[in-house]
Amino acid sequence: MSVITIERKILKKNDQFAMEVRDFCAKHNILVLNLLSSPGSGKTTILEKTLARIKTRVNVAVIEGDVQTDQDAVRIARQNVPVVQIVTNGGCHLDAALVLDAVSKMDLSGVRLLFIENVGNLVCPSGFDLGEHHKIVIASTAEGDDKPLKYPKTFRVSDVCLINKIDLLPYLNFDVPAFLANAKKINPDLTFFQISAQSGEGLDPWIAWLESRVEPKQ
Amino acid sequence: MSVITIERKILKKNDQFAMEVRDFCAKHNILVLNLLSSPGSGKTTILEKTLARIKTRVNVAVIEGDVQTDQDAVRIARQNVPVVQIVTNGGCHLDAALVLDAVSKMDLSGVRLLFIENVGNLVCPSGFDLGEHHKIVIASTAEGDDKPLKYPKTFRVSDVCLINKIDLLPYLNFDVPAFLANAKKINPDLTFFQISAQSGEGLDPWIAWLESRVEPKQ
Repeated sequence: MSVITIERKILKKNDQFAMEVRDFCAKHNILVLNLLSSPGSGKTTILEKTLARIKTRVNVAVIEGDVQTDQDAVRIARQNVPVVQIVTNGGCHLDAALVLDAVSKMDLSGVRLLFIENVGNLVCPSGFDLGEHHKIVIASTAEGDDKPLKYPKTFRVSDVCLINKIDLLPYLNFDVPAFLANAKKINPDLTFFQISAQSGEGLDPWIAWLESRVEPKQ
Repeated sequence: MSVITIERKILKKNDQFAMEVRDFCAKHNILVLNLLSSPGSGKTTILEKTLARIKTRVNVAVIEGDVQTDQDAVRIARQNVPVVQIVTNGGCHLDAALVLDAVSKMDLSGVRLLFIENVGNLVCPSGFDLGEHHKIVIASTAEGDDKPLKYPKTFRVSDVCLINKIDLLPYLNFDVPAFLANAKKINPDLTFFQISAQSGEGLDPWIAWLESRVEPKQ
């Protein structure tokens, strides 16, 4: 019982920090997207390819969350956009206090789109509001079409689902209509994009979705 | 600070239950293996194929852990071995109290090998002793060769690493030697098996490893 109480306090405290992130980003007209997925679903590669396409037209920044290593921030830095790495040192999700700290350390002047790449974990990050406008769940075709049913909360709290690695479909028993039906059972309002970050297939509608929501470079 | 105290208490309590599981299984000569991985790495398919090969020679039972649904237990039940499904209802890992409860509900007479399929999560389950003899980490080639560095604790506490989905290697940028080097950096004592649960490739050495550790059927 005491654990539940403390968990509630932690979430309440988190919600206060999330509100501060939200207020800051509203004031500066920044769209914030929180990317959730299993380890190895392709979050960082999706970000690399998305940044390469969008950065000439939109000012973008990235917060990288990882249990360990700054490898992802190093990869993103090559795209010449502002990036901060949060290493959780074993922690299984980002929280809003960490994000607020990162935001306060970044030069976000002119930035209109902020990606937060969460820790690779399809369970824990779903419970934490980071002040984002949308949670985006990424599911790789290699993970199987049953994932929405087995990890429902992440699909329930997300607004967009990127189905990544569609280039592998010929080699897998992944049933796209079954995945879509499973995901819609959990969340009928999900917007889907079927993509391959590796080959670039299907990225255009996703980029268009992003661009329709943010102010372009002047 | 209070949170840390309570977390310690939870882990201490967990260790007591793990000791009870361990004592029970020692008394009944049961080898217990705790399978850890990301969602969709192929844990259940590996179990299905392993059971199909080994069940005529060894008495096996399975505990299935999932955030939601009993789909995996239904799949395992088709192999006609004793199986119990633990649904954590949002919980991100199994703990020893849940396993002790499951063990007490199963008919394990004659069983010599007990698999515990943990919740799909490469972070949280690594911190919980379930009374197992070995933790087995499963990494799918589709997840990328950097995973040991990014999720080090799970690789550090495991004794065996199954590299699954090697049938996909021709279609991926997965560098096997790089993965092995990364994993050995974290844990030089890991034993590796490169397998494809789907095609059956590489399963023989893994099956031999299991059979060498358990008493066969009389």
